[in-house]
Amino acid sequence: MKPCEEEEEQGGAAAAGGGGDPWKECAELAVQLALRAGQIIRKALTEEKQVSTKTSAADLVTETDHFVENLIISVLKEKFPSHRFIAEESTAAGSKCVLTDSPTWIIDPVDGTCNFVHRFPTVAVSIGFAVNRELAQQKQAFDQPPPPTLAYACHIVAIFRSHMRTASTPSSDYISKALILTEIGPKRDPATLKLFLGNIERLLKAQAHGVRVIGSSTLALCHLAAGAADAYYQFGLHCWDLAAATVIIREAGGTVIDTSGGPLDLMSCRVIAAGTREMAMFIAQEIQTIHYRRDDEN
Amino acid sequence: MKPCEEEEEQGGAAAAGGGGDPWKECAELAVQLALRAGQIIRKALTEEKQVSTKTSAADLVTETDHFVENLIISVLKEKFPSHRFIAEESTAAGSKCVLTDSPTWIIDPVDGTCNFVHRFPTVAVSIGFAVNRELAQQKQAFDQPPPPTLAYACHIVAIFRSHMRTASTPSSDYISKALILTEIGPKRDPATLKLFLGNIERLLKAQAHGVRVIGSSTLALCHLAAGAADAYYQFGLHCWDLAAATVIIREAGGTVIDTSGGPLDLMSCRVIAAGTREMAMFIAQEIQTIHYRRDDEN
Repeated sequence: MKPCEEEEEQGGAAAAGGGGDPWKECAELAVQLALRAGQIIRKALTEEKQVSTKTSAADLVTETDHFVENLIISVLKEKFPSHRFIAEESTAAGSKCVLTDSPTWIIDPVDGTCNFVHRFPTVAVSIGFAVNRELAQQKQAFDQPPPPTLAYACHIVAIFRSHMRTASTPSSDYISKALILTEIGPKRDPATLKLFLGNIERLLKAQAHGVRVIGSSTLALCHLAAGAADAYYQFGLHCWDLAAATVIIREAGGTVIDTSGGPLDLMSCRVIAAGTREMAMFIAQEIQTIHYRRDDEN
Repeated sequence: MKPCEEEEEQGGAAAAGGGGDPWKECAELAVQLALRAGQIIRKALTEEKQVSTKTSAADLVTETDHFVENLIISVLKEKFPSHRFIAEESTAAGSKCVLTDSPTWIIDPVDGTCNFVHRFPTVAVSIGFAVNRELAQQKQAFDQPPPPTLAYACHIVAIFRSHMRTASTPSSDYISKALILTEIGPKRDPATLKLFLGNIERLLKAQAHGVRVIGSSTLALCHLAAGAADAYYQFGLHCWDLAAATVIIREAGGTVIDTSGGPLDLMSCRVIAAGTREMAMFIAQEIQTIHYRRDDEN
């Protein structure tokens, strides 16, 4: 079955309006939803929150995560009833996290929930979209513009928009002058912490200019896409942290790969992204693996 | 000699207009300068830069640091010829870094230069002011509003302003749910890195929700003042990183102390700031000292 036939059967291009640009309606609605979600999150940022924990004491969720996720999914489902959904809080509540060939929305309603809980204003809404299990290659498959992939920062959307117009990922191949982004991840057992800190130590000993930990994978990846850093790596993130930002980085000319140095596996809970392939491979050689269960094993 | 007499001799209140509010003119001019500097830095952020190193390969300076510092000092000096100045790049160029009783402006033209070099949009202009070697206690000494102390983020000034109106430092005493901010510091020898990472390990093992490293001491301290984090600590920062933000934190109800648990020593190149004294003391007990030379020893 050719991608287009399957996609029409699944209600993808057909539900999206068909014709010249089957994904235009998807894109427009996703943008609207991301902006609306951003408004909700921005308003909730400074308010009191009911906080619960998930897989660990540092893996947090609030009523806003649930509210925003339900809002995004309900609107998209009404418009595109045959599309599938992978979303952070639905998965935490037991939904299977399986990527099929069907058009699939991959959603993190509040990326950076720990920041959000603490009113630390570095959070994002991430709405990604995959068809035929691919995030960014639909252009070839459908001979159409790539589908919408969005990562809207709540408070710095304007900055990223202006950066994305003027900047692309940098071309530095040299770790010795690199600014590198990473995140801690939810596991905090002594062995994991040792590996996490050991990786930072290796990169700083290799004379990276600096390592930043800002608390939002999506925003960190957007910073990279905007040319504001040279590399990003993480173990313990999820497909919904990556789905939107991966396309943004690739469209900006950057590289997104697995931490082994091989192709990105969206469900593997690990990633290296960089301005150049050389930089990504350098990071892959330098860091030690921290094992997390795959998203599709849960 | 009473503070007021000395201060008039030094041209402080007199040069600042005298009368009911001797510092109003200082405050207004400093705000104007911070905003003007912010515009310059924002424009330069995405442009190509000439980068030089100072004390280490990670201690950077650009032409914008020099330009902004010269601009701020020249305008202030013309208006207040008897005031003194301590500023990052002048100090790097050999000026003595000595705090006297004279009215003294303490300036970091670009806080977060490494971020600035990489176009990572987390940088600040910090313009602090001290009289009688005190940053925040002039209120008692002069029975006047405290002098101007400003830390203007280039791109998030509006956010801090709105936060500062609505939020104050949080009251959490418990490390187990804290969001903690720190910075790497310029020294990168193996022993320093081990201590730096060991301190993060201790705090994460004590079940802090997270540790963030954003690359700007001033902005990190402003996040704390805005109630967006519970604590901040650092070794290897300078008086110009602290002068403005310390007052902002204290005005928001927070605590700023030495890493020993004693009173802040502005020249000691180390600090703990927190929403509560209990939290600050907990951090003091938890972290190990990283030795840096004092600002007034250079």
